This record gives sequence, structure tokens and C-alpha cells, in this order.
Amino acid sequence: MRNVTLLGTGLIGGSIGLGLRRAFPGVNLVGYDRDQESVDEALERGAISRASQDPADAAAGAELVVIAVPLGQVQPLLDSIAEAVDRSATLTDVGSAKAEMVLAGQAAVGGRFVGGHPMAGSERRGIEAADPDLFQDAAWILTPTPVTSSGAYAAASQLATTLGARVVAVDPSEHDSLVARLSHVPQITASALVDMASRAGDREALLGLAGGGFRDVTRIAASDPGLWISILRSNRAAVLHSLRRFGDSLGDAATLIENERWDELEAWLSRSRTARLELFAKPDIDGEPTALSLMVPDRPGVLAEVTTEAGKLGANIEDLRIVHSTEGGRGRLELVVAGSDEAEALSKALEARGYHVDHPDIDFTT
Amino acid sequence: MRNVTLLGTGLIGGSIGLGLRRAFPGVNLVGYDRDQESVDEALERGAISRASQDPADAAAGAELVVIAVPLGQVQPLLDSIAEAVDRSATLTDVGSAKAEMVLAGQAAVGGRFVGGHPMAGSERRGIEAADPDLFQDAAWILTPTPVTSSGAYAAASQLATTLGARVVAVDPSEHDSLVARLSHVPQITASALVDMASRAGDREALLGLAGGGFRDVTRIAASDPGLWISILRSNRAAVLHSLRRFGDSLGDAATLIENERWDELEAWLSRSRTARLELFAKPDIDGEPTALSLMVPDRPGVLAEVTTEAGKLGANIEDLRIVHSTEGGRGRLELVVAGSDEAEALSKALEARGYHVDHPDIDFTT
Repeated sequence: MRNVTLLGTGLIGGSIGLGLRRAFPGVNLVGYDRDQESVDEALERGAISRASQDPADAAAGAELVVIAVPLGQVQPLLDSIAEAVDRSATLTDVGSAKAEMVLAGQAAVGGRFVGGHPMAGSERRGIEAADPDLFQDAAWILTPTPVTSSGAYAAASQLATTLGARVVAVDPSEHDSLVARLSHVPQITASALVDMASRAGDREALLGLAGGGFRDVTRIAASDPGLWISILRSNRAAVLHSLRRFGDSLGDAATLIENERWDELEAWLSRSRTARLELFAKPDIDGEPTALSLMVPDRPGVLAEVTTEAGKLGANIEDLRIVHSTEGGRGRLELVVAGSDEAEALSKALEARGYHVDHPDIDFTT
Repeated sequence: MRNVTLLGTGLIGGSIGLGLRRAFPGVNLVGYDRDQESVDEALERGAISRASQDPADAAAGAELVVIAVPLGQVQPLLDSIAEAVDRSATLTDVGSAKAEMVLAGQAAVGGRFVGGHPMAGSERRGIEAADPDLFQDAAWILTPTPVTSSGAYAAASQLATTLGARVVAVDPSEHDSLVARLSHVPQITASALVDMASRAGDREALLGLAGGGFRDVTRIAASDPGLWISILRSNRAAVLHSLRRFGDSLGDAATLIENERWDELEAWLSRSRTARLELFAKPDIDGEPTALSLMVPDRPGVLAEVTTEAGKLGANIEDLRIVHSTEGGRGRLELVVAGSDEAEALSKALEARGYHVDHPDIDFTT
């Protein structure tokens, strides 16, 4: 990589720049952003080696052009650079919806456009938050089509792996459908569950009845609404399709309940359980995951005490969560240890320190 | 409490017995269970002071009769003891659905029946799992009605507080509606989300795209399907009603998306966000919750190292979770520290130990 252009120097563009310059200190990295402050800051932070005031000027001569602007700004940008970019240059982007984007990109530069979607960093914004390690160990989706040039795919792929990400190739429409199902519909669902639960119930009763399950299911409902609107807008068609199908699926479950077809409902719950366990199965766990649960005072040092005991015994803590008491002052610590022998040893050690340890039959590792 | 009868000596009945006898060593605690092995084991473990082979015999002479059998067995049990119980005795139960149960109980003994639902221990079964601390700090719902006698309510309430629980009074139908909305519908929803997400997507693509949000939302889909069928059966009418209304609510969201009424959708997401934050607001947090995130190797001792640093600095860890890398060998540790100064100090200490610490803008404390 010698000549790279970044169109957009916010969180994602800035992080790409920082990571690329760390990996290839000699790279000629030109940056453009319609926000002059952002591009100045990118230059100051070393996320680019030269700032440009014009996208066509910035893109000319680059082997790789990375488009990292909000979805609504991509089309005008493509229009203004299509003539200027080298005929051999690769164009790629980082947008969260891919089908329309890939059509637009291929209309501009044919098979040299490769859609991309790094799965990291969406919660924060701006060059200030840029981080060369943002993509470390994250998935970086690429969405090649039959017309994609293999050289362009290789270049986009190299960008991702250089930044520490692993490439996953998915068809553009399949991508949009998958993110709708894995992220966008779950988000709407969590908000709808909170909405339904909180309606006409006093807080004390709600809190008394809401267990850890409700807390987990609705956690993402606390996310930034403005950010979510922009995400949902960008993937409107796929979200709508999946949301309607999801509604049908809940309707099917309701019909089973209405007609008391409990065997079918149980079979359906079992299939989902298996799918969930398989999806998040941890590949290399040593020993059977075993859950422990204990009440702890809510003060500094308690977690250290518990986890230090585990460390001393060589017990690897696979998962841990803290359930605060609604009354404050104390909470329940739930942890999963690899191996039942290790769990037993840890349990004994904690009992010796005065903790009362339970052995709940819970699956929160998964 | 001098004369108490336990009808049903499984997990819940056995735990009540152990807790009561610890609090009142002199209590005359008679137990009955249609499973003779269970009642024998209860006697052996000291969860009851005398075993009886007949429910009417067991209930005669008791001031308090606690019914802790599966929902389907309650009506015949009420029929067989109604004549035998003292006219001043209090009857209470522990079932997870209350409207029908309260009607049946009041038909048998009038206002001396008080419906109850301790919010603890539902995942395990049997006297083997009984634990006198099972109800410690849990909510114990009581469902009085206008005909409930105040003496009976006081007795049921004393039972709950003796066992360390806190009493929350809710109308029986309101209870059923609330658990449907807070627990039963979220459970079905989590299963339906997994079902939709896993259909027609290869595991690698699914894993690449599924973030921590999806993991949280669907965690409870790994629960025991058989147990859930019995819960859903017991609250069929309220579940059905809430599930249909929930479907309508998702349909409304879909309509907003279809018609691009983004402002309304954002307002709806914002209301849910506020409701979620208010519901689980921790009452006594010292300082602003501040999130940190770092990659850690997946081996014993790492959690101890991190949490010990926090303890040394007096930084209280409010929440913590481990996101395992899908490739194994390492994971991301996300924690929330009370107070931004404390978070900054911990971040510096961890950086000094070679960790790279991020400051994600996430809300998983909530």
C-alpha cells in the first residue's frame, strides 16, 4: 500500500488512517472530509499524511479509496470522484447497509467497487474517538458480487487484515437481511418490550417481578435513539421485511398457545435453544462450564477478592455478571468457571472466606 | 409461628421449611408431599419436623398452611383440606400465576387465602436443591383482594419477611399481566429472535454480524423448554393477551418505518430508553458510571489482575462482562466503574500493566 485516500475522517475513517499508518509508516495517505475541522484534526493526530479540500483531487492517483462518510453523502461523493480515480484503483466503503451501496458503487466504477462493513465502533463518533486498534479481532464484512474484480477484492481484504480484522464475505442483500435479523429487529424488539412492560405498572411491582432475564433482553433499549434512526433508515427495506416476518413468527407462537399445542411450542423452543447454544458455543473451553452464585457487599475490592481466589486455584472464569440488589448496598455475583472440579474448589475457598455460594442451574455463559 | 404445614416439599417448599426452622427452631412444621421420597428427604434434611401421609391430617391444627405444589395439583389439594383446616388458619401458595389460583383459594376458605409468588429459585427442582437462603433479598409478591382478611395477609407477609424476602403487594390479575409482560413474552421473543436470525445464514456470517446486543437479547433462549412450557401453560390467558398486544406494537413500529415517520419512531425509542434507564437505575451509585473496555488473554488470573487493580485504587466495579472472542484464546473485558476519576486512574494503571484500554460509549450497566 503506497497511495491510499480516505474520504471521511470521522471515527471509522480516522481509525483506518491511524491503523494503516502504523502498519505502513511510508504510506501516502490523503484525507478529505467536508468538515474542515475533522480533516485538520486527522492531520494533527497523524491519521492522514496530507489533507485535501476536494474529493476528486484527493482520490486522483490512489490505488485504494476508502469511503467512510454517512450513507446519505455517498452518492454525491461517488459522482464527484468517478472521473478522477485511476482506472485500476479499488474503491471500498464502510456503510452499515450494502445492497443499494454496492449498486451505486458499481454504477460508478464497475467491479472495482467492493462493499465493506467493519463490525466495530458504531457507538462513538468523530476523529477524537479514532483508535488504530478499533478493528482488532472484529469481523469485517466484504460484499463481493459476480462482477467484483479479484484484484479489488484482494485490496479491500488486505485493508481489513492489516487493521487486525478478519474478513467475512457475504452477498450484499444477504448482508442487509442478516444485520436486520441480528441487530436491527432485536433493537426494535427490545424497545417494544420495555414499552409494553413499563406501561401501567408501578416501579416497585415492576422491579419485584423483573428478573435478570428481562434486564438482559432489554439492555440495548438504552442505546442512543438518534444513532438507531440513522441505522434503521439505511436498511429500511430489509428491516421492514424482517420485522413483518418476525411479527408473523410471534403470531404463530400465539396460535400454538391459544390452541394449547404445547408439544409443538416446546419443540420450537427446543430448536431455538439448540441454535442459540450452537451459535455462541465457545470453541476452546477447558472443562464443563459450571455456574456459581453468591451475595456480595457492593464495595471496592470484593470482585478482586473473588477473582483472586479463582486465579490462585487456576480456575478460569468464563463469564461473570453482577446483579445489583434493587435496594443497594449489595448484589449477587454470578460466575461461570471452566470445569466442575475447579468450581467446587473455588466454592469451598469462598465459603471459607465467609461467602455463601449457590450453584444455580443457569445458562448465562451462552 | 408455632404450627405450620407445608403441602409440597420440593425446592420451594423445602427451602421455606429450612428457612422457617432456622428462624424458629421450636416451630411444629408438618410436611406432606405426594412423592413419599421427597417428604422423607425433607424430614432427613430438617426442612420439616414431622412427615404426614395425608394432606387433611397435615393441615389440621396449623395456623399457616403453605401450598407449594405444581399448579395442576392445587385444586384437588384444596378440596381435600378445606374441611380440615382451622377456621382461623391462613392459607397461602407460591404459584407463578395468580388470578385463577386466588379464585380457587377463596372459594375454598374465603378471605383467609392469600396468593403468593416468591421471585426466586425457579430454575431448579426438588428437595435436594432446597436452600434456606433461597429467598434472601428476593421479592415475594402477595396478591390480596378486597375480601382478604388482614390477619391472613399479615401471616403471609411474616412468612416472606422471615425468609429474608421483601413483600410487594399486587392485584392478582395485574400480577399475571405483569409477569406475562416482564417474563413470559420476553422469553418467547428471545426464542423467536434466535429462530429468525439462525434461519438461512451460515454460522461464520452470523457470528461475524452478531454483536453483544444480540447475545444479550437472546441469552434466555437457552433456558429449559420443558420448564417454560409449564410456566406458559399456567399463565396462558395473560400471555396470549400480552403477546398479541406486543405483536401489534411491533406492527406499529413497522408502519412508522414503512411510512418513513422517523421523528415518531425516534420519539418512541427515546421513551423506551428513558423507561429502561429509570426502571433499573441503581439507587446509590457513587459517582458517574464510566465504561472501560480492554482485550485480555483467556486464562486464569486475568480477571483477578484487573479487579485487584481496581480494588487497590478504591474503584468500585459496578458491572463487568466478558465477551469471548469467537476465535478463542482471548476476549474483551468490559467494565463499568463508579466515578470518572476512578475510571481514569484504573485505566492508567491497566495501561501501565500493558493492557490497551478503550472507553466505549456503552450503556450495559443498565
